[in-house]
Amino acid sequence: MRATVLHAPGDVRVEEIDDPRIIEPTDAVIRLTAACVCGSDLWPYRGAEPVDGPMPMGHEYVGVVEEVGSEVATVKPGQFVVGSFVASDGTCEICRSGYPSSCVHRVFMSQVGTQSERARIPWADGTLVATPGVPDSDLIPSLLAASDVLGTGWFGAVAAQAGPSRTVAVVGDGAVGLLGVLAARRLGAERVVIFSRHETRQRLAREFGATDIVTERGDEGVAALKELTGGLGAHSVIEAVGTQQSMQQAIRSTRPGGHIGFVGVSHDVSLNGQELFFSQVHLHGGPAPVRRFLPELIDLIWQRKIDPGRVFDLTLPLDQAAEAYRAMDERRAIKALLTP
Amino acid sequence: MRATVLHAPGDVRVEEIDDPRIIEPTDAVIRLTAACVCGSDLWPYRGAEPVDGPMPMGHEYVGVVEEVGSEVATVKPGQFVVGSFVASDGTCEICRSGYPSSCVHRVFMSQVGTQSERARIPWADGTLVATPGVPDSDLIPSLLAASDVLGTGWFGAVAAQAGPSRTVAVVGDGAVGLLGVLAARRLGAERVVIFSRHETRQRLAREFGATDIVTERGDEGVAALKELTGGLGAHSVIEAVGTQQSMQQAIRSTRPGGHIGFVGVSHDVSLNGQELFFSQVHLHGGPAPVRRFLPELIDLIWQRKIDPGRVFDLTLPLDQAAEAYRAMDERRAIKALLTP
Repeated sequence: MRATVLHAPGDVRVEEIDDPRIIEPTDAVIRLTAACVCGSDLWPYRGAEPVDGPMPMGHEYVGVVEEVGSEVATVKPGQFVVGSFVASDGTCEICRSGYPSSCVHRVFMSQVGTQSERARIPWADGTLVATPGVPDSDLIPSLLAASDVLGTGWFGAVAAQAGPSRTVAVVGDGAVGLLGVLAARRLGAERVVIFSRHETRQRLAREFGATDIVTERGDEGVAALKELTGGLGAHSVIEAVGTQQSMQQAIRSTRPGGHIGFVGVSHDVSLNGQELFFSQVHLHGGPAPVRRFLPELIDLIWQRKIDPGRVFDLTLPLDQAAEAYRAMDERRAIKALLTP
Repeated sequence: MRATVLHAPGDVRVEEIDDPRIIEPTDAVIRLTAACVCGSDLWPYRGAEPVDGPMPMGHEYVGVVEEVGSEVATVKPGQFVVGSFVASDGTCEICRSGYPSSCVHRVFMSQVGTQSERARIPWADGTLVATPGVPDSDLIPSLLAASDVLGTGWFGAVAAQAGPSRTVAVVGDGAVGLLGVLAARRLGAERVVIFSRHETRQRLAREFGATDIVTERGDEGVAALKELTGGLGAHSVIEAVGTQQSMQQAIRSTRPGGHIGFVGVSHDVSLNGQELFFSQVHLHGGPAPVRRFLPELIDLIWQRKIDPGRVFDLTLPLDQAAEAYRAMDERRAIKALLTP
């Protein structure tokens, strides 16, 4: 089958690799209906993470089940499924406590690769959720978004305790940040401020429910936010970048006793203990437990109450994956969808 | 009046300074019944915090109100009061949200000094709580503990979400850690593990309700804790030291989705963003909002349901403050009480 493989920073190729097959009795193999490129795929693409030899890429996916292992009970061939970017057994104590992304048997799908025609999904029962039927094609992008960026933005908003009578600030205007805006509004936040200096993204943020835009960054951004919040900062801050500057901005944007949901994959970040101590914020984040939210998110999408698929502003055939990476790297696209 | 003054690291003296007086109409002046030395007083004493000229010491206090400013409404001369180590107005949005220690008008009592015969308490209405009457003398140490170490251990346990069916681990066997044990048990935790290699402290921890003691430290301590918790780590961890090693130990001792209450004043701590991200813990802490808990804590003490005063294992007259500092610095005493 054809699959996207990163050979070295900047060198993405679509090439023939072996077809996936059932290895464990808990596996499923799906045929992908759509895949996509994630902001976190850009880290190795940019050389900010090591690339040790050819690396199959991608961890977001929707598709149709082709085959299941003998122990798989909840999904069956022919069903359309959405899964989390982290496979999880669904039964361990950590999964049951709501943290499938830290499952004791977790498999990061980025180690499997899903920018391809087919994919093996470990722990199918604990990872996949079947949709009520075959989705209309216009729902595909939104269901695909649920696999990671929507689920991650949602977790960011939940971890930040976005909700009624709270002001939420969002650091990062990539797909996750934008969907953090959507999530914060759905969860009832009355005011949602996004830091963004990019017009297309600002527009989409407004559509998703942002009430205010701050174009300044760093400490100037913090000062502008404080101006909007009686000098105190936001109750809830979603951090959706993962750099030193963005984490610092998130901490300084949060009022004492407020909550930060940090979901940008952390790179070269070092937090000053004393600043964190005196900030008196709540900090929670990490790889989003997307599977926890999938049933609810699929339902919202199925009922057309949310349209997270709007973050995809570029659709290309799988063969043009290299261009999809370039467009996202150069910020010409917010998020690129690939059709296998 | 006589007061404890730090002149340079290691150089604590009790000397005559001006009597405090009402400066703001929201002030009170109290006559101290008891004061004490805190683990955090040892940071400047040890030279780990700068000492710029003579510095009045102490921030914990109980005593009798002598005089109040014209705007003070809730306490009056003659009442016995307990107050937080951070003065707070009690009315700002941050106070009302439960974080008086980050009050927009807060005054750290360590900047005022309370190891003295009298003290000026700013924001008396927002800071002090009167006891139901004049306490029996055997209750004085416990009420004094409420002013900081009990309130801080309590906040650590609350921030760590100690409660029924949760295993709580406590990093640090100073007064705050030990009272974190007491708090965790009062809040319903069924299992409380303390890291300690000091026999006297282990004994007191057991009396306060610790069910397990781990004598190993650092990653060995983490491994021992994991052994006790099915390989997963504790649900709740109270960090009561404030060093790089203790914070790291706290993070690594917590299971994914678990909660850390960090209340040790952070010194030279730098947290690795990536480790924190993938740990998937909840992190919350800072200077404890003691005032939030004072009414409940005073009530528990008054009814003799808890006996936090047991952390005081040395009582000296104020004049011997220097010896109190030495005893704590050398870990000969857990906590020293001073009688003015």
